[in-house]
Amino acid sequence: MPYFDAASAAPLHPVARQALLAALDEGWADPARLYREGRRARLLLDAAREAAAEAVGCRPDELVFTSSGTTAVHAGIAGALSGRRRVGRHLAHSAVEHSSVLHSAAAHEAAGGSCTEVPVDRFGAVDPAAFGGALRADTALACLQSANHEVGTEQPVAEVAALCAEARVPLLVDAAQSLGWGPVPAGWSLLTASAHKWGGPAGVGLLAVRKGTRFSPQGPAGERESGRAPGFENLPAIVAAAASLRAVRDGAAAEAVRLRALVDRIRSVVAERVPDVEVVGDPVRRLPHLVTFSCLYVDGESLLHELDRREFSVSSGSSCTSSTLTPSHVLKAMGVLSEGNVRVSLPPGTAGADVDRFLEVLPEVVAEVRERLGAPVSAPPSPAPAASLVVDALGRRCPIPVIELAKVIGEVAVGATVTVLADDEAARLDIPAWCEMRGQEYVGEEPADRGSAYVVRRLS
Amino acid sequence: MPYFDAASAAPLHPVARQALLAALDEGWADPARLYREGRRARLLLDAAREAAAEAVGCRPDELVFTSSGTTAVHAGIAGALSGRRRVGRHLAHSAVEHSSVLHSAAAHEAAGGSCTEVPVDRFGAVDPAAFGGALRADTALACLQSANHEVGTEQPVAEVAALCAEARVPLLVDAAQSLGWGPVPAGWSLLTASAHKWGGPAGVGLLAVRKGTRFSPQGPAGERESGRAPGFENLPAIVAAAASLRAVRDGAAAEAVRLRALVDRIRSVVAERVPDVEVVGDPVRRLPHLVTFSCLYVDGESLLHELDRREFSVSSGSSCTSSTLTPSHVLKAMGVLSEGNVRVSLPPGTAGADVDRFLEVLPEVVAEVRERLGAPVSAPPSPAPAASLVVDALGRRCPIPVIELAKVIGEVAVGATVTVLADDEAARLDIPAWCEMRGQEYVGEEPADRGSAYVVRRLS
Repeated sequence: MPYFDAASAAPLHPVARQALLAALDEGWADPARLYREGRRARLLLDAAREAAAEAVGCRPDELVFTSSGTTAVHAGIAGALSGRRRVGRHLAHSAVEHSSVLHSAAAHEAAGGSCTEVPVDRFGAVDPAAFGGALRADTALACLQSANHEVGTEQPVAEVAALCAEARVPLLVDAAQSLGWGPVPAGWSLLTASAHKWGGPAGVGLLAVRKGTRFSPQGPAGERESGRAPGFENLPAIVAAAASLRAVRDGAAAEAVRLRALVDRIRSVVAERVPDVEVVGDPVRRLPHLVTFSCLYVDGESLLHELDRREFSVSSGSSCTSSTLTPSHVLKAMGVLSEGNVRVSLPPGTAGADVDRFLEVLPEVVAEVRERLGAPVSAPPSPAPAASLVVDALGRRCPIPVIELAKVIGEVAVGATVTVLADDEAARLDIPAWCEMRGQEYVGEEPADRGSAYVVRRLS
Repeated sequence: MPYFDAASAAPLHPVARQALLAALDEGWADPARLYREGRRARLLLDAAREAAAEAVGCRPDELVFTSSGTTAVHAGIAGALSGRRRVGRHLAHSAVEHSSVLHSAAAHEAAGGSCTEVPVDRFGAVDPAAFGGALRADTALACLQSANHEVGTEQPVAEVAALCAEARVPLLVDAAQSLGWGPVPAGWSLLTASAHKWGGPAGVGLLAVRKGTRFSPQGPAGERESGRAPGFENLPAIVAAAASLRAVRDGAAAEAVRLRALVDRIRSVVAERVPDVEVVGDPVRRLPHLVTFSCLYVDGESLLHELDRREFSVSSGSSCTSSTLTPSHVLKAMGVLSEGNVRVSLPPGTAGADVDRFLEVLPEVVAEVRERLGAPVSAPPSPAPAASLVVDALGRRCPIPVIELAKVIGEVAVGATVTVLADDEAARLDIPAWCEMRGQEYVGEEPADRGSAYVVRRLS
C-alpha cells in the first residue's frame, strides 16, 4: 500500500518512535518542578530544544515548541504583528501560503489590519521584486513559505529576506514542508515548522523568533515556553520531534537526490503517458519529493478513489474532494488547471518499484474515469460548423462543464464562440486553464441569472 | 521513589501507553483524507471522541480535542464570551480557579471586559449564594472548577449550576482535577479537562460545549475540530487519552475509597506529629487523592528539597519555590498559611507503605529545616516583658519574618504589640495566618518606607 502523501503527514520515523517511548518513561513529569522527575523532564526538554535549534539554525532561547505547525504560525504572526503595531498594521504575504497563514491574515484584516497578497507566476513562485514592492512604511510583517505545500515550488527566500532587511520588515518563513530537507536560507526573523511533516509525531510545532525581533505574545498569559505557547509541554512528543529531525537531516542529502530522480521520472512519464495533463510547479527549484499534476476531464474525487482502490494514497487540490468544495487556492493563484488534480509526495524510503507501478496504473485510471464521464478521448468530431453555441452546465459539478465545452468546441466555426453556463466554482479556474492548454481564446466571464457565463472563442 | 504530585502530571497509565503505541502505527495519517490511512485515522478519531464524550456525559459532536487543558480553557472562555457578547461583557469566576482561567479573565479585562472574582471560605469553597449574587444582567459567562487543584476542595457545582440556569448564564466547569474520578454534576454548559492529569498523555485537552450554548471560536479560522481547536489532530495521543480515561474510570470508585483513607491518614497524622502545622482544604468535600498542609517557620523550597533528597516528590504553593516568588493565589484567597506549604497528590496505585514512610520522614524534615532557620522549637522563653517591639525583617524572605515574630512575641507584655517590618510578599499572608493559629491579634498592616509594617498584639 504505497503512501504518497508525505506532505500531509509522514509516518512516524523509527527514531521518533524510539525517542517517544523512552521519553514516555522519563519525561512525563512537569519540567517546572524541583523534584527528580521534574529535573529529569527539564533536562530532556533542554536537550530537545538545543537539538532542534541547531537544526533550525538559531539559539535555543530563540526557539519554543508549540502544539502544531498551525499554532506556531498563528502565534508567530499574531505576536509579530502586535509587537510592531506602532510601525503599522500592514501584512504582506504570498498568495500561495498555507491556510494557517491565510487564516491569520483574514483574522488580522477582520481586526482592522490590512494585507497585501503577492501574486505568483505559473510555477507558483513569487517574484522577489514584486514581493519587495509590497513592503510599505507601515508593514509590520512579511510572510513567505520556504516551499509550497501543494506544488513543491521553492520560494526565493534569500532574495526576499534581503529586501525585507533593507525595508526593515521582519520576515516570517513557514518552513513546514522543507525543514526536514535542510535549513532555511539565512535572513528570516521568525520561522515556523511542524514535526509530523518530517516524520516526527503530531502535536509539535516549532516557533523561532530571532533576538531583536519585536514580539508580543497574544492571548491569555502563559507560564510555559517563554509565554509563547500555552499549556503543559508535550514533552515525549517534543523529544521525539527533535530526535527525528536530527535523524532525518542526517540522511536528507542522499535521500533528496534519490527522490528527486523519482519525481523527475513522474514528471516526464505522466506528461508522456497521460493525454491532456498539466504537470505543475517549478521543474527545478522545488522540493525533492513532491510533484503535482492535473488531468483534464477528470474529477479529483473519482481519481483519488480509484487510486486508493489500487492502493495508492495521494491527495488532491481539486474541488469535490473530501471535505472541500472549492479548488485549491494555490492552483487558483498559479492560474493552472485544478480539475483532476493529484499531488504525489514521497516519504523518505519510497521504493522506486512503487513509483513505477503508480506510473503504470495512473494512465488506466485516468482513462477509466474519463470514459465514465463521457469525456472526449481524441480530437472532437467536426460536423458542419454551427454559429455560436450555448452550453448549459448549470448544477453540474467539475469536471462536467469543461467536458461539455470540449465536446462542442469543434461544432462552432473558427472565430465563433461557445458560452458555458456554469455555477460550479471550479469552472472559473478550469475553463481559462483549458483554453490555455488547447490554444483557444478565453474571452471572459459574464454574470448570468444563475452562476456565470464563460465565453470561449474557437481559434483552431 | 514515591511520586506524590499526581495533580501536576500523572505517570502514563499502562492502557494509555498501549493505545498510544497502537495508534502510532494506525493513526498517524490525516483523518480528513479519503485514502485508507486517512479513513483508518478518522475511525480512530471518531471512536476516541465517542468514548471521551461518554465519560464526560455529552454528545460526541459537543466535544473537541484541544492541545492541552490550558488551551481548552482559553478557547472555551474566549469562545463563550464572544458568543454572548451581545448580552454583555461580564465574567464571574471563583478566586481559586486555575491560572489558565485567571489569565483568560485578565486578558478579557485588558480587552475592556469586566470580571467579578467570587471569594472562597477558609476551606477554599465558594458559597453558592455569593456566586449567584455575582451574576448580573450583563454576565456573559461564569467559571467554576469542579475541585481545587491545590487543596482538593470540591466546589458546589450543582448548586451554582442551578443558579446559573436561573440567571440564564452559561457555566464553564474546569474539571481538570476531577474528571478521572467521575463525571461532573449536570448543569454545565462548557466543560474542560486535561488528559495528563488522569494518566493520559500530555498534549490532549477536552473542550465540551453543550448544543444551544452560544459559542464563537476566536483566533484565526481552523478546519479541524469544528473550528474550535486549530492544527492537525494529535491522534495517537487523543486515542490514548480516551482509552485511559475509560480505564481509569473503571477502577475509580474502588481506588477513590482506598486513596481517601490514605489521605485521611495523612491529614490526621500530620496534624498530630508535626507541631505548628495547618492542614488546609475541606476535610470531607474533597478530591480523594489530594491533601495540602502548611508548616510554620519553614520555607517551601527547603522542605521540597529535603523531601526530594529522601525520594518524595511533592509540590508546594509557597513562594520561593521553583519558578515562583509569590505565594499561591489559592492559599491567599483562603486566608490560610502559605509558608512551608506542601501538596501531596497520590497517583492511583500509591502504596500505603509509601505513605507511612512519608509520615515518618516528614516530622524529621520539618524539624531539621526549622532548626537550620533558628525557629522556635517550643514555647518561647519569657524574659521580663518589654514594651512594644519592632522587628526588622526587611530583605529577609519567607519564613524568616514569621520566625522573628514568633521569637519575640513572648518578650512583650500581653496587650502590647510587635511590629514586623517586612518586604517579602508572603508576609502579608503568613503573619495574619500565624496570628490565627496562635491566638494572637492581627492588628493590621501599615505602609512603611520600605515594605510594610505588620502589627500584632499579644493576647496570651
